[in-house]
Amino acid sequence: MPEMRKNPITGEWVIIATERAQRPISSIFDDDMLHIGEAHDPNCVFCYGNEHATPAEVYCFRERPNSDNNSGWTLRIVTNKFSALNLDGNFAVDNNNLLKTTGYARGKAEVVIESPHHSLNTALFPEMQITLMLRSYKERYIELSKDKEIQYISIFKNNGSHAGATIAHPHSQIIATPVIPPVVLNELNGAKQYYQEHNRCVYCDMIEMELKDQSRIIYENDDFISFAPYASRTPFETWVAPKFHSSNYEQLTDSQLKSLTDIWKTVLFKIYKGLDNPPYNYYIHTSPTRENTQSYYHWHMELVPKMTMMAGFEMGTGMFINISIPEECAEYLRSVV
Amino acid sequence: MPEMRKNPITGEWVIIATERAQRPISSIFDDDMLHIGEAHDPNCVFCYGNEHATPAEVYCFRERPNSDNNSGWTLRIVTNKFSALNLDGNFAVDNNNLLKTTGYARGKAEVVIESPHHSLNTALFPEMQITLMLRSYKERYIELSKDKEIQYISIFKNNGSHAGATIAHPHSQIIATPVIPPVVLNELNGAKQYYQEHNRCVYCDMIEMELKDQSRIIYENDDFISFAPYASRTPFETWVAPKFHSSNYEQLTDSQLKSLTDIWKTVLFKIYKGLDNPPYNYYIHTSPTRENTQSYYHWHMELVPKMTMMAGFEMGTGMFINISIPEECAEYLRSVV
Repeated sequence: MPEMRKNPITGEWVIIATERAQRPISSIFDDDMLHIGEAHDPNCVFCYGNEHATPAEVYCFRERPNSDNNSGWTLRIVTNKFSALNLDGNFAVDNNNLLKTTGYARGKAEVVIESPHHSLNTALFPEMQITLMLRSYKERYIELSKDKEIQYISIFKNNGSHAGATIAHPHSQIIATPVIPPVVLNELNGAKQYYQEHNRCVYCDMIEMELKDQSRIIYENDDFISFAPYASRTPFETWVAPKFHSSNYEQLTDSQLKSLTDIWKTVLFKIYKGLDNPPYNYYIHTSPTRENTQSYYHWHMELVPKMTMMAGFEMGTGMFINISIPEECAEYLRSVV
Repeated sequence: MPEMRKNPITGEWVIIATERAQRPISSIFDDDMLHIGEAHDPNCVFCYGNEHATPAEVYCFRERPNSDNNSGWTLRIVTNKFSALNLDGNFAVDNNNLLKTTGYARGKAEVVIESPHHSLNTALFPEMQITLMLRSYKERYIELSKDKEIQYISIFKNNGSHAGATIAHPHSQIIATPVIPPVVLNELNGAKQYYQEHNRCVYCDMIEMELKDQSRIIYENDDFISFAPYASRTPFETWVAPKFHSSNYEQLTDSQLKSLTDIWKTVLFKIYKGLDNPPYNYYIHTSPTRENTQSYYHWHMELVPKMTMMAGFEMGTGMFINISIPEECAEYLRSVV
């Protein structure tokens, strides 16, 4: 029977196309960029020796400290050379004309160069390197949120050219904006309303339900759970959330970072191996910088493999037709070791 | 100066990346599917002679009427063979568990086979064929909206494989759903609020502004205007709206259909010729079937050429970074004849 499922946070419906259900275990997109290749490419701006070709670093991890902007680093963050946002001046909004509201695009865009290795898939990183990456997200979040004009900090990764990556060298991105983006606002509003009605966090309740039900769980450890959301929008959509209630990613302790490393590495590897190295996007949804969402919001990570095409129906409506069944996707990913 | 622009209907911000502004006049996607080829492909289910291979037709235009499901038609609409929705039974929502709301996916999906010609780009259709297509949208809307369970009818087209088309033969799609989709709901809410505050239609005000300003107009005739929205999300985003206030597409008169044919054919051709035949999606935003939005809503068509990649930032935030300037895009399309 064809089924529709409702996202309990935003209220949005997904059409689960059971009539043509299938379990695509490879993406319709082929992506050579993702396979292991050369460790070093002298022409790559993110490789050792080309540090001068990027804007100066804003964050760096070196096992043996040497001077800034030199080789020898393990992870490095630089301002995006092609940034659409500037950190100077105010977010001055011109409200003279209701229909033509313009703002000066204050904000900041940064690139996290995740590893010195030119073409090692993030799923194959040693554990230490995943920890460094997840910790660098936290530290940049803290640093960027000091700027009073910044309302939200988006942390995301495009993996593979079909997911929007334009440089092969493994990297993620950080974009700090002077407004709270609509997708996040939707979640915040939904979570706030649920909290007002039930006096509980909707994410905590979801996690409790998933732990009871078991059918959509992909992996879990003491601190975190990974599952296929009940109203998954696409095949193999995967969420990772802390089992403990927490609205702010940057409040992760060192021991929680270790747990997150374990689950994130496991998830990335299951996706990589089980789905034959698909292009994907992931992003962190966490609290805006200037709002106290502690009681009702719950940070989490969403990973969306690009298995199918987003087209006119999705763009025009914001609804999704998912041609796979979340429980079957979870079962499959559980089996990948 | 980097700039952010606000969509006056939904309040969503777009980042206009003036720092790296460029005017891409060809898509990053190559799409062989779109070029003119054979008029007839004996293996295509949408071509003459294969009428038995599709579900029975629900609408058809024949210049010389003959029996149903035979060749000789000029435009034909059939139920989508791979429909995710059924028109039997009720939209029964199981609300027992707040976190697992399920509905039986009542609704209907149809395919508009726009022409007997297997590979003629819609932009190159004779005027009569465009009129037939636009009229068939209206007539199916009226027919499908009779079903009391249907809340919204999405009419859209995916042009080219990179925009999600899986069959080369020119076709559009209609999907009727038992819920109002979130993107439409957002527009309705924004338009309603504007109406409550100003006692005017926000779209009428936008059109008035565009007519005064002139810089974003692409083409106009007596009844319709085509323009690059002030807060365009992507390069060459193009809207077409009636200059007269109207919330419901299906209320188009015959003479308005003629005007719409003129502007729609012109826009499709400018996009086709000016942007070197890019993949694109278009969709109609019109009133839900069971709500009276007459005072505050304004139907329109949105065409989004697929020039760049939608990636993690857009997915995670719902914000867009547009690497082109809407005024320059409009100027360029104006010059294409």
